[in-house]
Amino acid sequence: MYELTLIGIGTGNPDHLTLAAVRALNAQDLILIPNKGAGKDDLAALRHDICAAVIHSPGPHITEFELPERDTRTQDYRRRVDDWHDIIADIWWQNITTTCPDGGKIGFLVWGDPSLYDSTMRIAQRLKSRAAIQLTVIPGITSIQALTAAHAVPLNEINGAVTLTTGRQIRDGGWPASAETVVVMLDGQCSFQTLPQDGLHIWWTAYAGMKNEISISGPLAQVSTDILERRARARQEHGWLMDIYMLRRFAV
Amino acid sequence: MYELTLIGIGTGNPDHLTLAAVRALNAQDLILIPNKGAGKDDLAALRHDICAAVIHSPGPHITEFELPERDTRTQDYRRRVDDWHDIIADIWWQNITTTCPDGGKIGFLVWGDPSLYDSTMRIAQRLKSRAAIQLTVIPGITSIQALTAAHAVPLNEINGAVTLTTGRQIRDGGWPASAETVVVMLDGQCSFQTLPQDGLHIWWTAYAGMKNEISISGPLAQVSTDILERRARARQEHGWLMDIYMLRRFAV
Repeated sequence: MYELTLIGIGTGNPDHLTLAAVRALNAQDLILIPNKGAGKDDLAALRHDICAAVIHSPGPHITEFELPERDTRTQDYRRRVDDWHDIIADIWWQNITTTCPDGGKIGFLVWGDPSLYDSTMRIAQRLKSRAAIQLTVIPGITSIQALTAAHAVPLNEINGAVTLTTGRQIRDGGWPASAETVVVMLDGQCSFQTLPQDGLHIWWTAYAGMKNEISISGPLAQVSTDILERRARARQEHGWLMDIYMLRRFAV
Repeated sequence: MYELTLIGIGTGNPDHLTLAAVRALNAQDLILIPNKGAGKDDLAALRHDICAAVIHSPGPHITEFELPERDTRTQDYRRRVDDWHDIIADIWWQNITTTCPDGGKIGFLVWGDPSLYDSTMRIAQRLKSRAAIQLTVIPGITSIQALTAAHAVPLNEINGAVTLTTGRQIRDGGWPASAETVVVMLDGQCSFQTLPQDGLHIWWTAYAGMKNEISISGPLAQVSTDILERRARARQEHGWLMDIYMLRRFAV
């Protein structure tokens, strides 16, 4: 019997950890940390820092595993992601059975919240065919919340709807039908450039919630270039970048 | 100079508090707690419980104030809400200047996250015309995250968009155009009843994240009646109820 606990850890600031997350981190037998390899090392290091900040000695085993790349030869996006999750599930299972052959508590640190644009839950579900698995989810602060906190701005207008979406969706489908407020995640390509620039206000934040947080807001047509420049500079400086933004229609 | 800190406290479970929230609660001079009066007393009591759980002696002053009702004679919804916020800002200001006439740190405990379907930020903005105000937002776990954690289900499909909306919007506008996944908040009227029942899966949770959490999920057409019954019974039992649900289209 394995208990898999997906622990939302927020966006990199150890202060984002909830009391439940701190307790869960200390309760595990094994914590698995993915390593994306050169250039993304900061992210694995951040996970270790978070563990070090709140886990009491002796604490769980902490094992790093190398995260494979997605197979870019697979044309279909959904299929490419599914295949990739299968491979990661294999790697997890190998690590889990090596350290905990007779069952145990396995923890995963998930950026933000395990339910929002994250693969960990889907990969965990795959292990259910191999053993008795109990899945527990500990909510965490998402980059959406870190974004709105950074700007001290409400996510929604009064009684208004909000659309959460991805850079890919914006590039493929444009502004979501009838949306008033749109939050764009997973957007390495600054897809706001593909939208009509007039009539939109943007709130953009990189490294949301962290010490090196950068925030820019204003009418998209006025601040778009500034965001692109700051973003490029920050990526070069840190070797990696996580950013998120919100767009809201205003009357022109 | 006043520093207003809006502290997201999650959905009622003290374990939802982040380390940042615990620190902020302890750092205030005054904490203002609204009391909605008879029947809703549990909510003010819960806020006191959360303070008691994490604030070290002597800690900040904690003052309760009576939350006014919205004036139902005002026909326009937006105007009614704006007027109500003005009145609350007056009450805040009276309490703040009584306890901290020369400035200070004033804290507010906000259910969920201060940016999501909550008035506190809009009311705080109103005080900027009366004094120098610095506004700080501490993100908190939302009921959306408590809902998806309760069901251990992802909020989004792979690369899929998510619409966050209100019961009022669902009643007035039906299913949001082109949406795949919809989270409905602030819905005291079970507005899912107004939607076509076929082809939708629902994940419903009341008292999300709390000890008396209740969750039901399944095809809407099959579980709708069950939800209505459990909801009515729970409201009677506890005197109040907070619930939230997610709907997702599936192929029929």
